[in-house]
Amino acid sequence: MAMTETPSKHAVEEGLAFAPRFDSDGLVTVVVTEVWTGEVLMVAHMNEQALRRSIETGEAWYWSRSRRALWKKGESSGHTQRITEMRLDCDQDAIWIKVEQEGPGACHTGRKSCFYRAVPLKQVGAITLEFRDAAKTFDPAETYGKSE
Amino acid sequence: MAMTETPSKHAVEEGLAFAPRFDSDGLVTVVVTEVWTGEVLMVAHMNEQALRRSIETGEAWYWSRSRRALWKKGESSGHTQRITEMRLDCDQDAIWIKVEQEGPGACHTGRKSCFYRAVPLKQVGAITLEFRDAAKTFDPAETYGKSE
Repeated sequence: MAMTETPSKHAVEEGLAFAPRFDSDGLVTVVVTEVWTGEVLMVAHMNEQALRRSIETGEAWYWSRSRRALWKKGESSGHTQRITEMRLDCDQDAIWIKVEQEGPGACHTGRKSCFYRAVPLKQVGAITLEFRDAAKTFDPAETYGKSE
Repeated sequence: MAMTETPSKHAVEEGLAFAPRFDSDGLVTVVVTEVWTGEVLMVAHMNEQALRRSIETGEAWYWSRSRRALWKKGESSGHTQRITEMRLDCDQDAIWIKVEQEGPGACHTGRKSCFYRAVPLKQVGAITLEFRDAAKTFDPAETYGKSE
């Protein structure tokens, strides 16, 4: 039987072969939670190189879609992320990392988490967001030479 | 001054106007965590209609990229998700929902979470995944008329 390039659905879901499915831009989605609290700090993307470096070093590297550049989290801010565990989802197109966040926060706006606004539920029509855990924990202007 | 269609970066990040940024496929990424444990159950996508229904009903609706269909989580399995909180990230292109997961699990493979395999860290070269919390909590063949 000829080798197939694409592993079967069963192999992707139940196998132990690491075959991440990058999207048409060459990226996988990465959910980043804080290991101590379970709080979602950010959602980011890795290309193959960022994923390989993250695995090899145990520190979080991403692909910045806005800057079109490989990016070590914390390279300008010092707010690095040590990965304590990396998980892969059933269809191998999303990654979850638990991290120890160095410094006061992960968000380039100066907050611990990027998810500092709540969407009210059971509402019909226009939605007004609500700040939640939105206090700034650092001054991004001071921290970044340029924005992350 | 003319109205601009695209809100400013500052308005997107610091404002209370809900202006979700759908990607070129009309989708936002949604991280789903279990409210009690903080465990990431799945990563999915919502289009505008799924997002509106989720907000209006407080139950999770998604867009299935594989089936190209609006999808209420649990409509065939009974494993619905009651949203206890919805958060939006800084650039309004990712959503985090905390849910009460009904039934034994969220993953169509028959597990509580889709993230049942770990990627070993500090490794160079070929990667072999490791099962983690991978015991099946239900039989997907019994639960689904067809796969979710």
